[in-house]
Amino acid sequence: MVTAARDRTPAVGDSATAGRFLRSARTPATPTAPASRFDQWYDNRRRENAFEVRRMPLAALSGWHFDDATGDLRHDSGRFFTIGGLRVRTDPGWRSQWQQPIIEQPEIGTLGILAKEFDGVLHLLMQAKMEPGNPTTVQLSPTVQATRSNYTGVHRGAPTKYLEYFVSGRHRVLVDSLQSEQGSWFLHKRNRNMVVETTEDVTVDDDFCWLTLGQVLALLRRENVLNMDARTVVACIPLTPQEPLGQGFAAALSHSLSPRATPLHSGGHVLSWLTGIRSRRELAQQRVPLNAVLGDEWFRDDERIARHDGRFFSVIGVDVRASNREVRSWQQPLLAPARPGLAGLIVKRFHGVAHVLVQARLEAGSAIVAELGPTVQCQPDNYRDAPPASRPAFLDWLLTVPPERLHYDVLQSEEGGRFHHAVNRYLVAEADDTVPDEAPDGYLWVTLRQLTALMPHSHHLNVELRSALVCAHSMWCEEYR
Amino acid sequence: MVTAARDRTPAVGDSATAGRFLRSARTPATPTAPASRFDQWYDNRRRENAFEVRRMPLAALSGWHFDDATGDLRHDSGRFFTIGGLRVRTDPGWRSQWQQPIIEQPEIGTLGILAKEFDGVLHLLMQAKMEPGNPTTVQLSPTVQATRSNYTGVHRGAPTKYLEYFVSGRHRVLVDSLQSEQGSWFLHKRNRNMVVETTEDVTVDDDFCWLTLGQVLALLRRENVLNMDARTVVACIPLTPQEPLGQGFAAALSHSLSPRATPLHSGGHVLSWLTGIRSRRELAQQRVPLNAVLGDEWFRDDERIARHDGRFFSVIGVDVRASNREVRSWQQPLLAPARPGLAGLIVKRFHGVAHVLVQARLEAGSAIVAELGPTVQCQPDNYRDAPPASRPAFLDWLLTVPPERLHYDVLQSEEGGRFHHAVNRYLVAEADDTVPDEAPDGYLWVTLRQLTALMPHSHHLNVELRSALVCAHSMWCEEYR
Repeated sequence: MVTAARDRTPAVGDSATAGRFLRSARTPATPTAPASRFDQWYDNRRRENAFEVRRMPLAALSGWHFDDATGDLRHDSGRFFTIGGLRVRTDPGWRSQWQQPIIEQPEIGTLGILAKEFDGVLHLLMQAKMEPGNPTTVQLSPTVQATRSNYTGVHRGAPTKYLEYFVSGRHRVLVDSLQSEQGSWFLHKRNRNMVVETTEDVTVDDDFCWLTLGQVLALLRRENVLNMDARTVVACIPLTPQEPLGQGFAAALSHSLSPRATPLHSGGHVLSWLTGIRSRRELAQQRVPLNAVLGDEWFRDDERIARHDGRFFSVIGVDVRASNREVRSWQQPLLAPARPGLAGLIVKRFHGVAHVLVQARLEAGSAIVAELGPTVQCQPDNYRDAPPASRPAFLDWLLTVPPERLHYDVLQSEEGGRFHHAVNRYLVAEADDTVPDEAPDGYLWVTLRQLTALMPHSHHLNVELRSALVCAHSMWCEEYR
Repeated sequence: MVTAARDRTPAVGDSATAGRFLRSARTPATPTAPASRFDQWYDNRRRENAFEVRRMPLAALSGWHFDDATGDLRHDSGRFFTIGGLRVRTDPGWRSQWQQPIIEQPEIGTLGILAKEFDGVLHLLMQAKMEPGNPTTVQLSPTVQATRSNYTGVHRGAPTKYLEYFVSGRHRVLVDSLQSEQGSWFLHKRNRNMVVETTEDVTVDDDFCWLTLGQVLALLRRENVLNMDARTVVACIPLTPQEPLGQGFAAALSHSLSPRATPLHSGGHVLSWLTGIRSRRELAQQRVPLNAVLGDEWFRDDERIARHDGRFFSVIGVDVRASNREVRSWQQPLLAPARPGLAGLIVKRFHGVAHVLVQARLEAGSAIVAELGPTVQCQPDNYRDAPPASRPAFLDWLLTVPPERLHYDVLQSEEGGRFHHAVNRYLVAEADDTVPDEAPDGYLWVTLRQLTALMPHSHHLNVELRSALVCAHSMWCEEYR
């Protein structure tokens, strides 16, 4: 009989799993992860892993070339990623047609966190990892960030540490789903988000550290510590508190995760609403040569790919070198946003239950037309001189919200392996009476539990919304000191 | 307050909805849908809607042209669909790289069935609809088959009947999800699958007929009556019998839909298993000009696009004319499969619970690398001379299964608006001891309830598996006489 297969991974979607994660989220310290240790270890890792990242011309990047026929910027191996062109046609309402450079990387990578129970509490093995585009160079990342190229050995480097836990099939899979990444910059990009539990002895390398989920969430109150890859994996972790945790607004947020939090709309309606938008709105994507995108708006010179008006983003080159020890050095392109971004959630209580206002967002590189995004997601400076009617809904409300309603306001950066200093200001604010109960067209009030329930399926929440959600969780988890 | 929004669509995913559909599935006749009426109406519709479909050269199609620069076959309006080229790279295991023509239609259409309760039983408004590629010209289709072009008026024809029920938002949405279509022939194609219930009076046009779900399912025992669009919408209908219905093998199939049918693997494991395959396998898709695909394998002449060896499919032109009354006529290309296809499910009981063996299938135009497909899905003639090791797994088992194990064996055709005589032999067979309990790599045993639970989310079951599922349902529904 095949009962063996049944026992191998009994834990995905299991309610016991959610309970174990909740316990970890409420544990501020353990003998394995004492409160005093993290800062020392992290500071030490940042010193040991000091890298120098210098800008250099795209045309001079070693290992990369502009394709003769298309102008696409490609790796000499044909793998990793390519900067190409994209033409987009949408229905009227915003711009009905535009073209832009886009990052194409058809393979699906693995973002994996290894978990293990110590003293009855699940711990997560987090990594201090350098990425050239990070504003602080080293940030806290999942145990494993592996592209397919990594594990098939195209990069000719050392094998990715701990990767075998995620590919062997011998360990308990607690979380496992495909999730999309920045649709404005990537074409159809998604990664596998996993948490895998082992009962085996794990040798902890210098760059790795066991933390409780509570400790990880608490780090979201600091700027630029938890990288995007760690945030998206943590966002997929099921948490279902039976009673409110913390005080005041934080308690309302934690209750919004509970099965007792009655939502305004059924889960079926949330999906039907999104499906309706996906079929009514149009998103025709045509991958074209980068050369075809260059012209009136975009230009390319030896130095970079950018816009004449300086808006949106540019593509630059960097040279990466270890400053203090023998480690590999390399050169690569990075996409550099022109301005800081903003991702904000507005929260309102209905019948005592906290709901967040999400929008169905079309993005150039979306795989299924639209995904749920935060209430506001934009580069605000792009709208500095825009008339009120063409400014994103709720942007002005969020930018002028009184401090007592602004419960979370922290800078967090996006993936430093592809983006250069892509910092977003993440906000969570409580609505006042000027935020309407009736959501505008394209927006919907949902509970946190409803959003979490969508995680096991792919392509429902965009990466900015997933990040904003874990930022919200950090408000009710136990304080890390 | 926004409770009004909450009441508007309380029925998607509701357990009462599943119960109402089950009742309809078990009702063989009602005063509104007497058993005697369907055949007479259907025969009448086929006579009234007689059309003549003649082959004609692609180069002579009115309203269509080969693009000068790319060779793509396009509609003069730039809308509807385009026959272009696709280059595909997958990981080793089969062919690691190939190119082929592909149908590109980036918009999402709506396949909608209108439902209404009569005498306490839900009835479905089905349409006798002509499509040029149907083997029998007229087949039974959903109430509405609308492309975005249809409802934005690009076709300059009459407005689509009953479409307002699916776009107004005034009616109860019972089923609503995006589902993919033939991944071997379409690039990233999906349609919205809906069932909407009205309590208003409905004027029934000559080409339309109220049927119970039981009557619709029973029609699957006949060849080529229920078209693909109707099958995929019906496949999305939730059915959760609390006790086995029918006798023997049919009873086991109905029980496999029940919440009491304990599956071998958890629902979370099913998704994790599929996610694993989606990330391990590679599917790089490059949309290229049709001209770039022509050469050693594929050719184009004025008549058609086809392969020198005659395998897989060709693209042909048709001229469509009403033979007996003033109705519009038109010309269009159709994709014509070279050989009949086969889609077969193997069913086996574990601990008394029927499980079907599904495979994770990569197809050229898949949107998320792989979806679940039937146990066997192929054009068997393509493997006539293939050595046993390169024939699809379980194909020979299905082709030689003894009659007492073969419970369903009926020809059903795929979408006649795009495909010319694309007939698949659908099979449902019960495993013997030679079918292993341990599913081979890339295959998994799942219950029908697990598959139904995946429907509200997009892109999990391919269209052939959805069709095969409703064929299986036809075995336990009440007989239509």
